[in-house]
Amino acid sequence: VTVSDLTERQLVSRISERLQPPPEWLLVGIGDDAAVVEPERNRLEVLSVDALVEGVHFDRRFTPPQAIGHRALAINLSDLAAMGASPRLALLSFALPPELSCDDFDAMVGGLADLAALHRLHVIGGNLTRSPGPLLIDVTVAGTVKRRQTLTRSGARPGDEIFVSGALGAAAAGLDVLQRHGPSAPAAAPFQSCVDRYLFPIPRVRLGILLARNRAATACMDLSDGLADAVNQIAAASRVGAVIESEALPVETAARAWFESAARSPDDVVMHAITRGDDYELLFTARPRQRGRLKAALRHADVPLTRIGVCTEPGAVVLRSIVNGAVADRPLPPGYSHFR
Amino acid sequence: VTVSDLTERQLVSRISERLQPPPEWLLVGIGDDAAVVEPERNRLEVLSVDALVEGVHFDRRFTPPQAIGHRALAINLSDLAAMGASPRLALLSFALPPELSCDDFDAMVGGLADLAALHRLHVIGGNLTRSPGPLLIDVTVAGTVKRRQTLTRSGARPGDEIFVSGALGAAAAGLDVLQRHGPSAPAAAPFQSCVDRYLFPIPRVRLGILLARNRAATACMDLSDGLADAVNQIAAASRVGAVIESEALPVETAARAWFESAARSPDDVVMHAITRGDDYELLFTARPRQRGRLKAALRHADVPLTRIGVCTEPGAVVLRSIVNGAVADRPLPPGYSHFR
Repeated sequence: VTVSDLTERQLVSRISERLQPPPEWLLVGIGDDAAVVEPERNRLEVLSVDALVEGVHFDRRFTPPQAIGHRALAINLSDLAAMGASPRLALLSFALPPELSCDDFDAMVGGLADLAALHRLHVIGGNLTRSPGPLLIDVTVAGTVKRRQTLTRSGARPGDEIFVSGALGAAAAGLDVLQRHGPSAPAAAPFQSCVDRYLFPIPRVRLGILLARNRAATACMDLSDGLADAVNQIAAASRVGAVIESEALPVETAARAWFESAARSPDDVVMHAITRGDDYELLFTARPRQRGRLKAALRHADVPLTRIGVCTEPGAVVLRSIVNGAVADRPLPPGYSHFR
Repeated sequence: VTVSDLTERQLVSRISERLQPPPEWLLVGIGDDAAVVEPERNRLEVLSVDALVEGVHFDRRFTPPQAIGHRALAINLSDLAAMGASPRLALLSFALPPELSCDDFDAMVGGLADLAALHRLHVIGGNLTRSPGPLLIDVTVAGTVKRRQTLTRSGARPGDEIFVSGALGAAAAGLDVLQRHGPSAPAAAPFQSCVDRYLFPIPRVRLGILLARNRAATACMDLSDGLADAVNQIAAASRVGAVIESEALPVETAARAWFESAARSPDDVVMHAITRGDDYELLFTARPRQRGRLKAALRHADVPLTRIGVCTEPGAVVLRSIVNGAVADRPLPPGYSHFR
C-alpha cells in the first residue's frame, strides 16, 4: 500500500493519530482552512522554516523514514534553540512521491511526532501534496521567548569567549560511513555513534533556553552549516574578529578515528569537523565577567561545553594552531553552502 | 545566469530587495537563525501553510514565473480570508531546480512580493534549497483575528443561507485554455479573463475581514478545492445538510462559453464550475435574521455575492435543479482530491 492509495483525509488522519492531545491554547486545529492559536502572554514569537529534500539533504537508500521525520523537525528545533526560544508549535508540509509506502509514511511521521512530544511541541496544521520527484518535508516552527532573553547573532563583543556544545564531526563521519558502507555493514559498527548522530541529531533546546533565561550568552547560533560558518556569521553580525584554537576543538573521538582511517592528516580531520554541516550543536559567546551566569545555566544543562576561542577587535576570523611550538594563524574557512 | 551560479546569500539579497521596509513589530528579521516577532495585542493568531509544486499545481511551460509567485501567496491569503484574519507575515520556503534562470527567480519573487505589499503582509524569513526535481514553493502565513470574530467551518445551522463570492469556473476554464492553446494563441483571446483568473487569483481578504468584523457569517471556507467540496466540508463540520440551487450558481460568463464550446451539456458546465479547484472565492453561511450584519459587511466589500442555497437539518447535501418544471435533487459531488 502506497500513499497514492489513500485520500488526503486518510493521510491527515494517520498524522493526527500520532499527535499528543491538543493544548488549551489551540483554539482551531487540523481540519479548518487555518489553525487558530492564542499567543502566550508577555512573550515574543520566534518563527523559522527549514526543508529536507530527498537527494539534497538525505538519501532514502540509507536514511530510514523515522530518521527523515526526526531530522526534519530537529533542524528546526535547533534554530529555535539558537534563539533561546521554547518550542511551541509546528506546521508540516509534505510533498510525497506516489510510490512512498504507507509504512514508510507512518514511520516518518512517527519519528517527527516522537521528537515533537519530547519537546512538548504541538503540530497544529500542515499541507499534503503529491510530488512528481523527490520526497520533501518542510517544517515551520514557532516558539516563544521573553523580550530581553532573546539570543541573536549580533551581540558578541571583543573579549567575549567562544563556546561550543557537545562534539564536532560525528554527523559528517556518520554520513560518510553510511555512504561508504550502508547502514548495517560490519565495517560501520565501530562508528555507530556517528551514524546515530547523523540520523538522529539532538537539537540543543534545553541549553538554548538555559542560556537565554540566565542571560549567559551574548550571541548564539546553531552549527547546521558547520562550526566555521557559525563563527564567521557571528563575527560578521556582531562586527568582531575571532580566534579559534584548533587544539581546543572537541572533535568526537569516533569521528576522529573515522577521518584518520581515511588516511587524512590531523589537519584534514579538523577541517572536516568544522566545515561540514549536520552538527546541530550551539555556538555561543559569553562575557568573561558574567561567567557566574554561564555557571548557573550549566548547572541544569544536559550537554558538555568547550571553550574554543575568543572574540577580538573587528578584523580577521582565524584558526590558530601550534606548529613546531610556534603560533600559526590562517583564515577560518567558509562553511557549507547550499548553492554553488 | 541561473540560480546555481549564485550563493544562498545572494539569492536571499535578491528577495530582500523586493520587500517592503520591516515593520516595527519585527524585532529580528531575515539573517538570524529565526525571526522574532511581537504578537499583536488582544488578537488570536491564524496560521496556515500551502505549497505549489511544479508538475502538480502548475506547468512552467504556460505559467509565467510572476504568476507562480503570485499564486503561491494567494492560496495562503485565501486561507486567512476564510478565517476572517488580517494577513500579517509570511515565511517562504523555495526548492529551486539549478537550471532556473535568475530572471525567472526574480519574476517569481516579484509576483509574490507585489501581492504581499498589496495586503501589507511582511515576509519575515524563509529557506532556500536546491531541488533535484520540480520547483516547489511552500508558503507559511500568519494573520490575526479577534477571538469572537474568528470564522470557522463549524458554525452553520439549519436555516442559514449559503452565499458565494464572485464567479465560478473561470480558473478551471483558464487552465483548460492554457493547456489547449498556450498563453498567447488567438483562440485564447476571448477567454483572457479566465486565463488571468487562473494565473492571478484574487484572494478575498477584504471580504473575509468584513464578514468577521461584522460577525455576519456563521461558517466560512474558501473554494480552493471547488464549491462542491466546500459545501460538503461546511455541512460535515457544522453537522447540517444543504440544498444548493443549480440555477443560482454564478458561473462566469466566459467560462460558461468555454465549457459550452467544448460541446458540453449545460449540466456539464455546472459540474465543471463546482467540482474543479482554483477558484479562490469564499463560501459562507449567514443567519437570515442577521441580514443587517451582512448588509453592513457588504457596504465596503469589493466583490459581488450570490445566495446559492440553504442549510437544512442534518442529512443529505444536494444539488437541486429544475428539470421540465419539476424539482430534481441529486447528491452534491465531492470536490477535487490531491491524492488518488
